[in-house]
Amino acid sequence: MEVGDLVDRARQRQPRAVARLISLVEDASPQLREVAAALAPHTGRAEVIGLTGSPGVGKSTTTSALVSAYRAQGKRVGVLAVDPSSPFSGGALLGDRIRMQDHATDPDVFIRSMATRGHLGGMAWATPQALRVLDAAGFDVVLIETVGVGQSEVDVVSLADTTLVLLAPGMGDGIQAAKAGILEIADVFVVNKADRDGAETTVRELKYMISLGRREIRGATWRQPVCKTVAARTEGIDEVTAAIAEHRAWMVERGELAERRTHRARTEVEAIAVETLRSTLGNLRGGDTLDRLAKQVMAGHLDPYAAATTLIEDIKAAN
Amino acid sequence: MEVGDLVDRARQRQPRAVARLISLVEDASPQLREVAAALAPHTGRAEVIGLTGSPGVGKSTTTSALVSAYRAQGKRVGVLAVDPSSPFSGGALLGDRIRMQDHATDPDVFIRSMATRGHLGGMAWATPQALRVLDAAGFDVVLIETVGVGQSEVDVVSLADTTLVLLAPGMGDGIQAAKAGILEIADVFVVNKADRDGAETTVRELKYMISLGRREIRGATWRQPVCKTVAARTEGIDEVTAAIAEHRAWMVERGELAERRTHRARTEVEAIAVETLRSTLGNLRGGDTLDRLAKQVMAGHLDPYAAATTLIEDIKAAN
Repeated sequence: MEVGDLVDRARQRQPRAVARLISLVEDASPQLREVAAALAPHTGRAEVIGLTGSPGVGKSTTTSALVSAYRAQGKRVGVLAVDPSSPFSGGALLGDRIRMQDHATDPDVFIRSMATRGHLGGMAWATPQALRVLDAAGFDVVLIETVGVGQSEVDVVSLADTTLVLLAPGMGDGIQAAKAGILEIADVFVVNKADRDGAETTVRELKYMISLGRREIRGATWRQPVCKTVAARTEGIDEVTAAIAEHRAWMVERGELAERRTHRARTEVEAIAVETLRSTLGNLRGGDTLDRLAKQVMAGHLDPYAAATTLIEDIKAAN
Repeated sequence: MEVGDLVDRARQRQPRAVARLISLVEDASPQLREVAAALAPHTGRAEVIGLTGSPGVGKSTTTSALVSAYRAQGKRVGVLAVDPSSPFSGGALLGDRIRMQDHATDPDVFIRSMATRGHLGGMAWATPQALRVLDAAGFDVVLIETVGVGQSEVDVVSLADTTLVLLAPGMGDGIQAAKAGILEIADVFVVNKADRDGAETTVRELKYMISLGRREIRGATWRQPVCKTVAARTEGIDEVTAAIAEHRAWMVERGELAERRTHRARTEVEAIAVETLRSTLGNLRGGDTLDRLAKQVMAGHLDPYAAATTLIEDIKAAN
């Protein structure tokens, strides 16, 4: 099928066309550039919500509850579940799909598990493109869910308009461990499983941390709200969507939303350029340039910087 | 001081010169290339051992015990402790230095905590260069210690000749959680805190996992040994060094050591080239090219692939 046709069908709410387009971008198919060009004019409308947290805090359950809440508002919802588990196995989380089955028959919900592919740039490469597909296909809200570990977390933050960080009581030193990064990335905190022992302690510790860390944007402080939920019973979910809406209004008022989105586009363009150059590196003169240089470095005849310079000269010379 | 002078002094076992050289590479100083060139002819001798595992398994204690064991063999030992904690905070682990104080007065031991710097490529950038400094300075063994989480773990594996994966009993579903990646990256397993309840269960589960997963290299199978240690009392450490030596001999016999090291050099050269190109991207025409393109992408006037192509053309045109 023609790419233009596929995009038209995706925009006519045909889930198969959406799935096909995501596969094309995920597999970095030869049509990738054509797909990207066809999508571009239709993008920029979706509200993008990132959702992260340690394993066991109830991310998928919360995502599922948020999907229901947005559906009740009449919005079409896309979900991208990113599995950064192992850089080696790279499998998608089957569990996510199972937990999402409530929505399986709803044509206005589209759920996709993204496998991160290999080394650097997995998430940075495929997920933004899948997001562009859902955006162009007219999904009003796109939820991106990822485990709160390292790089993929950062990548989600760079994609989202609003980032939710989930915690749960009784996760041992969860807050302590997470402390380093979560204050900086969270726009909204969600303490899930709030019916459990220790929920109040978690909320109190969190509020204390928030009171210490100031997060200024253009002179104004966004004080991160802390929502309590029992996602499995959809309790507190409306407070979460309200907090997201409030954060959005706050950003729009300050020009911060446009700022974040420009930053997102910048990151995306940069990631594509770097990946393109990286693959050029591997392919120079039939792929043996890098190997030849590596052997010289290993033997001590060349240092890695001099080798990299040679490689870059080769790229500039290549057409 | 001249770079050549510094390298000479480092090779004469002056710890200050070693520290200064590592700082130069870590800070990406303007002399970085000169340093790399001066080091190159003296590299390729050190035996590189990677050590990874979840927080709490006793990595630093084990590292410290291994340092003692190699010192007892008359070897000079370098340690690079990599802290991948938060992509945001990026601080080095003070604790490591404290635990290593046994060796603080030994001139033939050099310990350095590496802070990972920012986004992608932190570890990939600075740690290999620090390793080259220690290698050139005549350290016979370099231990690279990192928390077993995500990318930094992968990076350590790509640097090491032999990778140790540490586990401890009673870490809950440690093996389960770690399962995805550890079988593939471990050359030697170490079950530390083996005097604790559940040690035998951990060993048994591990051996069962190993029996399922076959790890073939050029038709030969390296069956990962499982060592039991109580590192705090230096029990079982000699078995670990013996297992490392055995793995090394096995690799040398099969040409696998040279293969791993070529791969290491390849990764290193590639990472430097990519980082160099990435910084070129940011600096094109005073840094505004990327911003201008990002704004066009955000507005839907341009797709990110077309923008990346423009950026790359600009790089090729730039001198």
